[in-house]
Amino acid sequence: MDRGRAQAAVARVAQLAATTHNASVLEGIGPFAAVWKLGANLPPDAVLVSSTDSVGTKSKVAVAVGRHKGIGQDIVNHCVNDVLTTGAEPLFFLDYFASGRIEANVLEQLAEGMTDACLANGCALVGGETAEMPGVYGIGDYDLAGFLVGMTSAAAVLGPARVRAGDQLLALPSTGLHTNGYSLVRHLLAERELEYDTQLPGTSGPIGDLLLAVHASYLEPIRALRAVGEVHALAHITGGGIIENLPRVLPLEMAGVVDRKSWRVPALFTALQELGDIPEDELWHSFNMGVGLIAVVPAATVAAAYQLSQFQFFGIGEVEQRQGPDRVLLR
Amino acid sequence: MDRGRAQAAVARVAQLAATTHNASVLEGIGPFAAVWKLGANLPPDAVLVSSTDSVGTKSKVAVAVGRHKGIGQDIVNHCVNDVLTTGAEPLFFLDYFASGRIEANVLEQLAEGMTDACLANGCALVGGETAEMPGVYGIGDYDLAGFLVGMTSAAAVLGPARVRAGDQLLALPSTGLHTNGYSLVRHLLAERELEYDTQLPGTSGPIGDLLLAVHASYLEPIRALRAVGEVHALAHITGGGIIENLPRVLPLEMAGVVDRKSWRVPALFTALQELGDIPEDELWHSFNMGVGLIAVVPAATVAAAYQLSQFQFFGIGEVEQRQGPDRVLLR
Repeated sequence: MDRGRAQAAVARVAQLAATTHNASVLEGIGPFAAVWKLGANLPPDAVLVSSTDSVGTKSKVAVAVGRHKGIGQDIVNHCVNDVLTTGAEPLFFLDYFASGRIEANVLEQLAEGMTDACLANGCALVGGETAEMPGVYGIGDYDLAGFLVGMTSAAAVLGPARVRAGDQLLALPSTGLHTNGYSLVRHLLAERELEYDTQLPGTSGPIGDLLLAVHASYLEPIRALRAVGEVHALAHITGGGIIENLPRVLPLEMAGVVDRKSWRVPALFTALQELGDIPEDELWHSFNMGVGLIAVVPAATVAAAYQLSQFQFFGIGEVEQRQGPDRVLLR
Repeated sequence: MDRGRAQAAVARVAQLAATTHNASVLEGIGPFAAVWKLGANLPPDAVLVSSTDSVGTKSKVAVAVGRHKGIGQDIVNHCVNDVLTTGAEPLFFLDYFASGRIEANVLEQLAEGMTDACLANGCALVGGETAEMPGVYGIGDYDLAGFLVGMTSAAAVLGPARVRAGDQLLALPSTGLHTNGYSLVRHLLAERELEYDTQLPGTSGPIGDLLLAVHASYLEPIRALRAVGEVHALAHITGGGIIENLPRVLPLEMAGVVDRKSWRVPALFTALQELGDIPEDELWHSFNMGVGLIAVVPAATVAAAYQLSQFQFFGIGEVEQRQGPDRVLLR
């Protein structure tokens, strides 16, 4: 490895990361490990909430289009949402970047994205690993994973135990595919020999742009929602779509009944369906279909949510008492 | 993706991970994020110590030889040592596994290794992400990264600020290359068309076995050392060798003076040097040369360390007041 080149690139990442540091960061990037001061006013039942994820093959689209900053935002927002499902606020984030050869320009764009998203979500980028693995990754290819630690109190953790039959399903819009379904889409485009500058029928721009739309962070709308009403559980709609992710926050004896006509599926998804002649079942298992997060709330919270005019909550169904293998019924 | 196959493999990982869970784990693998109870008896200045790392291209050797359990142990031990450099004890670990296609058998071996190492280090495997990224990874190839959170108190954090001129350098033996230098070695072997069953002159077994030796965890010997004497700083000898890692824990105005004749460099390293006609400088920058961890200690600790007969501490030099770019002097 060209040591100087890699070190310069990593030094630039450290410089950007330092802009996210607050008084809790005693040691950031540089030492073998980051040191975070917990602070004196912890709840007695404080819990740490941690999650790891990657951007998957969305990085392949970024490589093809040559735009990487959004991928940095994606990984932070993805982890923030995962940790948020428990009701926790993010504290600090670490990234893992691996490629066959470190491209300083790509790494810097990713670091800019991670830095921006960490600042927007109020968390610190405290560490990371930059691995150069010739022979494992193809030329230009890379993988970006993230680790986030957040905090809440044990008594406040959201989840299935709080959910009641009759609870309402409040959705928040996704910005696009977020970070799932990219292998399928890339396969479709390659099969039809379509480039990323193609505009699919009914969509608002080149498919490359739509595919690189930044994964939304739901921290702000959920903070706002919890300030005006009770929330029982939060499902982040990632790989597997609504069908596989909503059940993760429902009690086993309940199912989510989702009214498909309660929102307009964004044109991107219907265009992809037509392009690939994708069966309905596969479609709903592969994509979020325009729903990025589902809040499971008592009925009283719904009206309060609709008053939050700066956020686009929309009702998509409710929770029913129901035994059986089908945990989500699309109607 | 074949959803059933991947889910079965991940379910097996979750089953193994559950064996590492203690009363602090409120939610493990399954929900979107893991939940860890901090407990009531925290020091008022408690700090969280976090680190992320990967096994690098050691995974390529594992794929060629067809043995993966050790790679799972490697990633946990690597992270444990990084966090240990601050003096922190490990709490919980998350892994990130990515490949072109999930091989259930490989994933299970890795999970067994991670589980064993988590149990041995007293930490819990609370979460992970298993990514299938066709087109990014070559057939059979994979990458395994880890993320560990540990805890200590701010007042107890080890590091450069504690180091004094005259401090002694106490080393602990590495078990082999640990997780660094594999791209260089693979390149050498490929160039000379040597298989992994080759036994290099002076070494104790097939090169494949030696290369897959498990990265040592230094948690136990360092616990024992701190019980009998003061420790100022700990350097984990990873990529860049002693030359690049020892300075990370020394004050800027000091250098480490290392006596090369104070230990016998294991035959594996000298055999690799001869095989590749590797210049001395590159050798010491690429490999740990038999030293896995260096404890920087006051002179009084040295005799106590030698009394710990179950661990193989050996003195390799000392810290000198010295300005200049050379932070490690090999003598």
